[in-house]
Parts: sequence; structure tokens; C-alpha cells
Amino acid sequence: MQVLGFHTLIELHGCNSKKINDTILVEKTLLEAARIASLSVVNTTIHHFNPIGVSGVIVIKESHIAIHTWPEHNYVALDFFTCNESYELTEALEYIKTMFEANLMELKEVKRGTISNLTPSFNKEYE
Amino acid sequence: MQVLGFHTLIELHGCNSKKINDTILVEKTLLEAARIASLSVVNTTIHHFNPIGVSGVIVIKESHIAIHTWPEHNYVALDFFTCNESYELTEALEYIKTMFEANLMELKEVKRGTISNLTPSFNKEYE
Repeated sequence: MQVLGFHTLIELHGCNSKKINDTILVEKTLLEAARIASLSVVNTTIHHFNPIGVSGVIVIKESHIAIHTWPEHNYVALDFFTCNESYELTEALEYIKTMFEANLMELKEVKRGTISNLTPSFNKEYE
Repeated sequence: MQVLGFHTLIELHGCNSKKINDTILVEKTLLEAARIASLSVVNTTIHHFNPIGVSGVIVIKESHIAIHTWPEHNYVALDFFTCNESYELTEALEYIKTMFEANLMELKEVKRGTISNLTPSFNKEYE
């Protein structure tokens, strides 16, 4: 079964609240994680909520990385979505976990756009 | 159980390949969907792949909307992530489905950052 998109939903708990409320640190951390994972950055949008929290997206050539932080709960929701399975996700995530001082990281992997779900006219190409 | 983020993963199959390869149409469709859902747009990044496909993210005040299209498979992966459950997602998604002429839409809802997973020190606030 061919898969078009590889989407990893990451939950980081017990993070350092000051670090995940620091827009510059969050942006630098994600850019370095993208570099570690060999992903090509197209555009970055990071903004700070008033009074607390950081929200951002890095659009990468291979798809996107998204982050939303809740410093008041020491919690970060992170998404890596790529169209290429062969990238160094584990190393990139360990780097983010270390930078945010998370004590628990949970991953959920979701395959997006499986060939078996596609319209019959396009399945022909893969028979 | 309190939930911090509401994440809906949407699969659109059988889309009109020309429409989902049209960067301007995709951007306009998402912005109108955000308006229908009463979401506040902060920033938009949409780009076109060479030779085919559109990839984009709309950062909204309440979190983000992400899209990746595969015109060669008539397939679109769409994500709505918000920190507020009370928004008009159904109507917004029906609008997108109509605009892309999709013949099948599948939804998966994922709750992000449930209170029971948070560190004990922060659970105190919700007792």
C-alpha cells in the first residue's frame, strides 16, 4: 500500500515553561530540528500569544512542521508532516525534547493518502 | 478530561485535479473556509510545487490550517488545529469539499494535550 504523506503527531509534556514561552528559542529550536532532519525550509511563521504561549509553522519543501505551546501546562503539541518517509525524525525530536526539557514525549504516526483509498482511475497506475 | 487542542485530520479524495493544482484557488478557498468557521487569520503561506501540487499553511489566532495537494492522485490532505472546539468546522469543510469537487471526505479527530497527561503540579489548578 503506497502512502503519500507521513504525519507524526507529537505530545511533549513536562516542558520548561519559560523555554516554550520564548518565541525566539522556539523558532531556533525548530529550524535546527529541520536541519537535523535534512528538511528544506521554505518559510517560517512564529507568533507569541498574549499573555502566554507560542504558535508557529515552518513550511518545508517536503510539507510542514507545526507547533503550539501551552507554557501554563508545560505542554507542547508538535506536528511533522512530510511526503518522504526517509528523514531523520528521531534525532530531530530528541533535540527538541532536550531543548524544551520535556520529561515525556508521545508519538502518533498517521499515514495520509493511502493508494487503496484513491479513485479507481488512479489506482491503475500502481497495478 | 480537559483538552487543550482539537485537531481534525481530513482526507479529500476524487478531487478535481486542476482545481487542487491552482495555488490561487486553493488559497482563496482556505481563506473563505476560515471566514466561514469564524477563525482569525494571522498569516498565509501557500506555494506551488514544480511540476505539480500545492502546499500551504494558514496560521490562525486559534492555531493553524494546513493543506497539501496531490493533483496526480486527486487527493488532498487537510488539517484544522484549534484550541477552541466551538467553531463551524462542518460548514467550512463542506465548502472546501464543494470547491475541490471531492467525492469522498474522511475525518479523523485527535484530542491534543489532555489534562490527565499533564504534570501533577499543573493538575492542581483544575481540581
